[in-house]
Amino acid sequence: MPRSKGDHEARRRDVSEAVWQVLAARGFTGLTLRTVAAELGATTGLLTHYFPTKRALVEYALDLLEQRTVSRPRRHSGEGLAALRDALLDILPLTPEATDSNRIWVSSWDAALADPDLSTEHARRYAAGRDRLTERVAAAQDLGELPGGDPAQVAAAAQAFVLGLVVQALFDPAAFPPRRQIELLDAYLATLTAPH
Amino acid sequence: MPRSKGDHEARRRDVSEAVWQVLAARGFTGLTLRTVAAELGATTGLLTHYFPTKRALVEYALDLLEQRTVSRPRRHSGEGLAALRDALLDILPLTPEATDSNRIWVSSWDAALADPDLSTEHARRYAAGRDRLTERVAAAQDLGELPGGDPAQVAAAAQAFVLGLVVQALFDPAAFPPRRQIELLDAYLATLTAPH
Repeated sequence: MPRSKGDHEARRRDVSEAVWQVLAARGFTGLTLRTVAAELGATTGLLTHYFPTKRALVEYALDLLEQRTVSRPRRHSGEGLAALRDALLDILPLTPEATDSNRIWVSSWDAALADPDLSTEHARRYAAGRDRLTERVAAAQDLGELPGGDPAQVAAAAQAFVLGLVVQALFDPAAFPPRRQIELLDAYLATLTAPH
Repeated sequence: MPRSKGDHEARRRDVSEAVWQVLAARGFTGLTLRTVAAELGATTGLLTHYFPTKRALVEYALDLLEQRTVSRPRRHSGEGLAALRDALLDILPLTPEATDSNRIWVSSWDAALADPDLSTEHARRYAAGRDRLTERVAAAQDLGELPGGDPAQVAAAAQAFVLGLVVQALFDPAAFPPRRQIELLDAYLATLTAPH
């Protein structure tokens, strides 16, 4: 009996979920056809149908990471400075789901830095993230909630701050529970609002 | 003719340098007995004498990274806030050597997050780094160069800021040349000095 389109879609979702679980547990270092097949309860042979090469698997995983990041739920608590704070909170590992996603992003840095094309893609992703933050900084400046100055510079600094906080929280969740991450972010935002 | 102790030491230095070169070019993802042997112009068999397992190689590489980080030249331009700025500048990828070293640190995060023991070691390393920064923050507070407040909180925030800036600069060196990294750091330090 031929497989239906529905079967095919369901299998694709299973493959995506298996890749995600392997990444969350083992990172890109542990991502192989063998580990994904084991997670899926399938043969490596079936996986080569989806991913003819290791690189194809890595590219798929990076696309999956971007899709899940783009489609994750977002905070919308206000405009101006509140919207900037929302965007930064959305990045931090404050929930188990956000922790998995961040752990996979951090893991992807090694694979990306070893490959010029992947590195360029990552640079583009982070530049796009800074552009989105820059819009929010500019909006907060327009509302008089942030002092003047180059909004791109403020956005780059804020992105640096949250990326580094992500790394600290992943390695030391006991020292950086969600409450402390939020305290640190709010203290950071408070320094931005003071004119200097 | 038996090998002398000098030969043995020289060979160890060659092995270290080969591991370092592989890490700088390919990261931990690309670190294998085969790639190190190729870099060294030796056989994989010789390498198994030094590293019986992949894990032994990874642990050696992490130790090497820590040794080289500890023994790197440091800035000493002053005390108080100047000493804090020195410590943060010492972390940033402002030279080719510091770029290699940071690229290897970032790469190590994937391997470390996949292994509870390595992850604990990394958490310890970053906590020790925060402790050193905390001392410098407290000294700057004592000199009246920084406002009061929990120095550990200021140190954690500053560490987050520079770690995130490292990641941005590695992926996008054109957007984050040394001059811009220093500008961003100085703007960050300026926000700390303003009472709020």
